[in-house]
Amino acid sequence: MVEPVSIAIITDFGTRDGYVGAMKGVLQSLSPQATLLDITHEIAPRDVGAAAYTLGRCYRYFPPDTIFLVVVDPGVGTQRKPLAIQAGAHRFVAPDNGVLTKAIQDQPKWEAVCLTQRQYWREEVSHTFHGRDIFAPVAAHWANGTPLHRFGERVADLVMLTEDGPRWERELPGFSGRVTQVDQFGNLITNIGPFVRVGSSLQWQDDAGQTQVCAANAFIIEMAGLTLRGVQSTYADAAKGEALALLDSAGQLEIAVHRGNAAEACGLSRGAKIQMRISA
Amino acid sequence: MVEPVSIAIITDFGTRDGYVGAMKGVLQSLSPQATLLDITHEIAPRDVGAAAYTLGRCYRYFPPDTIFLVVVDPGVGTQRKPLAIQAGAHRFVAPDNGVLTKAIQDQPKWEAVCLTQRQYWREEVSHTFHGRDIFAPVAAHWANGTPLHRFGERVADLVMLTEDGPRWERELPGFSGRVTQVDQFGNLITNIGPFVRVGSSLQWQDDAGQTQVCAANAFIIEMAGLTLRGVQSTYADAAKGEALALLDSAGQLEIAVHRGNAAEACGLSRGAKIQMRISA
Amino acid sequence: MVEPVSIAIITDFGTRDGYVGAMKGVLQSLSPQATLLDITHEIAPRDVGAAAYTLGRCYRYFPPDTIFLVVVDPGVGTQRKPLAIQAGAHRFVAPDNGVLTKAIQDQPKWEAVCLTQRQYWREEVSHTFHGRDIFAPVAAHWANGTPLHRFGERVADLVMLTEDGPRWERELPGFSGRVTQVDQFGNLITNIGPFVRVGSSLQWQDDAGQTQVCAANAFIIEMAGLTLRGVQSTYADAAKGEALALLDSAGQLEIAVHRGNAAEACGLSRGAKIQMRISA
Repeated sequence: MVEPVSIAIITDFGTRDGYVGAMKGVLQSLSPQATLLDITHEIAPRDVGAAAYTLGRCYRYFPPDTIFLVVVDPGVGTQRKPLAIQAGAHRFVAPDNGVLTKAIQDQPKWEAVCLTQRQYWREEVSHTFHGRDIFAPVAAHWANGTPLHRFGERVADLVMLTEDGPRWERELPGFSGRVTQVDQFGNLITNIGPFVRVGSSLQWQDDAGQTQVCAANAFIIEMAGLTLRGVQSTYADAAKGEALALLDSAGQLEIAVHRGNAAEACGLSRGAKIQMRISA
Repeated sequence: MVEPVSIAIITDFGTRDGYVGAMKGVLQSLSPQATLLDITHEIAPRDVGAAAYTLGRCYRYFPPDTIFLVVVDPGVGTQRKPLAIQAGAHRFVAPDNGVLTKAIQDQPKWEAVCLTQRQYWREEVSHTFHGRDIFAPVAAHWANGTPLHRFGERVADLVMLTEDGPRWERELPGFSGRVTQVDQFGNLITNIGPFVRVGSSLQWQDDAGQTQVCAANAFIIEMAGLTLRGVQSTYADAAKGEALALLDSAGQLEIAVHRGNAAEACGLSRGAKIQMRISA
Repeated sequence: MVEPVSIAIITDFGTRDGYVGAMKGVLQSLSPQATLLDITHEIAPRDVGAAAYTLGRCYRYFPPDTIFLVVVDPGVGTQRKPLAIQAGAHRFVAPDNGVLTKAIQDQPKWEAVCLTQRQYWREEVSHTFHGRDIFAPVAAHWANGTPLHRFGERVADLVMLTEDGPRWERELPGFSGRVTQVDQFGNLITNIGPFVRVGSSLQWQDDAGQTQVCAANAFIIEMAGLTLRGVQSTYADAAKGEALALLDSAGQLEIAVHRGNAAEACGLSRGAKIQMRISA
């Protein structure tokens, strides 16, 4: 007897074509006890980086043993490996294309297998829809208690997205980084961080693993056409319609407009350069 | 032992950024027995009025004890109060910004507390995402059986949206009101009503609480550039592509185009004025 | 005691107006044990054909006894019949407007009733929202074990969408057909098929029920402004940005652009003509 688990789903399928419906049907048929949870189906088509980001932002809040079924799979039908991975307490089923980068990179220990054992797949396997034919059935069998190693051979290396991290620039001094995501509200989320606010200061770990500290209002944030002074606590620290810098809910530097849309107001989008320097 | 309950969720987060995912993870972690139901995550950013409307249109159909978790929260991080409210048989967790107006205003009795007891929150609380850090954990603990009064001190006054109701104009005679919502089909939902159709007549309660009655075809409905005669029963009472007035599924006056989009056809949107007078 | 079943939902309501919320509330109130699954609420307004297609693409993957609640109902309030149908192992509740065409047409046996027994409806029935007032309550009662015949009288004829099937043209020789759907990725799904790929050949059944076979690379696919040679296995059989023909996950001829959007690249949409002929 295995405890019922949840299967949380991320795809770039939208819902209108029935592709997500087909996956849910397969999951329900094979594992009727599992609870199906939609995270999103609105990842932009084939945007592996965006899916990695979305998963990275939410996976840690789910219960141990949750299975994340992540099907953003532009290489479907090619030699890219289908994977099942146990990483810490969490479990992931996804193609080996970097979509798990954010969820895996912080884990001290993980174990991955390449899905090769066809008895855990649907009987007929298409060349274009492994979400339905391979990933969903494996997720369901895993939810039912089939041990990881049964699904295929162990894999030692995973495709990981390599992205420019933020850099510490001694001559500024400060960080240079980029906008990694524009959210539903038009907030610009950056790769600079994470910081922890302690009173009126920000703390962070430097490249040597040392904790650094600086007053939040000593930072100057610069991007194309916009300079902001200080890292605020919350949106209302700026006047309505004014831009501000603050920490997002994961401790990353975020640029927002109070009750507005920063991406539109600033004309910036994913990839835009940003500097966060300490004033002299 | 507490009966499993449902937690029904309304946000303006979209699903793509993982914010809803994070909330679902917190809910599942703290209350694995609760059933999570999506109402919508597609409220326009910060549109408290639209969320109030959506909740008001659907909450009464859910089972008693359902917890509505409503996170449309432009004032996150400010002094606006986070609330938990028992109102009649239903339960609500939301910021104190009017988003519960439609759900609360008809209740003879409600009890509200301000969420101040941090032991029911996540350990780390951000300044920008109380949905994850305060509202979701409280909803989960409430679903698990923690009594309302434990979450904080009682609150006697709530922020309520004050909107122009429809007015009875003696000199018309008839109602003057506004379009309150444009739905997915482009139907224009108004604040005039509710009416009950009885045979070929409409009944309503006047300001003095008296029941009034008038033939449905004696009404003349006027808005910018459009005059309609009579309140029809259903869409097909107009020819395809023609505009008509009818009662929506809550008894409110609605302007529609049969198999078309009234908002586009009439060039009208939320807030547009509308009169419904009785012909001489 | 009846086993808990799933109710899988397709609508054209979007989620933002609370109409889907109201239906979920009714379902939960009447059948708290049933599992509610969203297939989609993003069918284009009143697009019965698209809903039929979406249902047809996914219903077969769900467990037996799943109830599909399909509310795309432009004729709400008219004489069109509300239906409950048992077809093979699956169950459907929907208006009689063809929305079940794809799900029913392959079933050797089905039994349909017209929903006339008001004791299984909500007490008050609007003229504009039978999803909430008739279809959802009947689905819930059916999930709870009420037998089909209780809901109303048997119906022998159903409205079925008649669409141009693909035709075999002797003089080509080959198939002529149309694009039936443009999916989330911009892939053009056609009505030509289904085929089964066996090695490097495609097999299909001709009009006389005989199995035919032809080399996949002997086909020439032609549409406005585009000619493709051969039916490939998967997207990566074309260079990035190049168009190709392949079989979709249901065996239908599909036109795609590798890592691109075929509908945009080719300027084609639903209804576009397509020929698939065998080269001399």
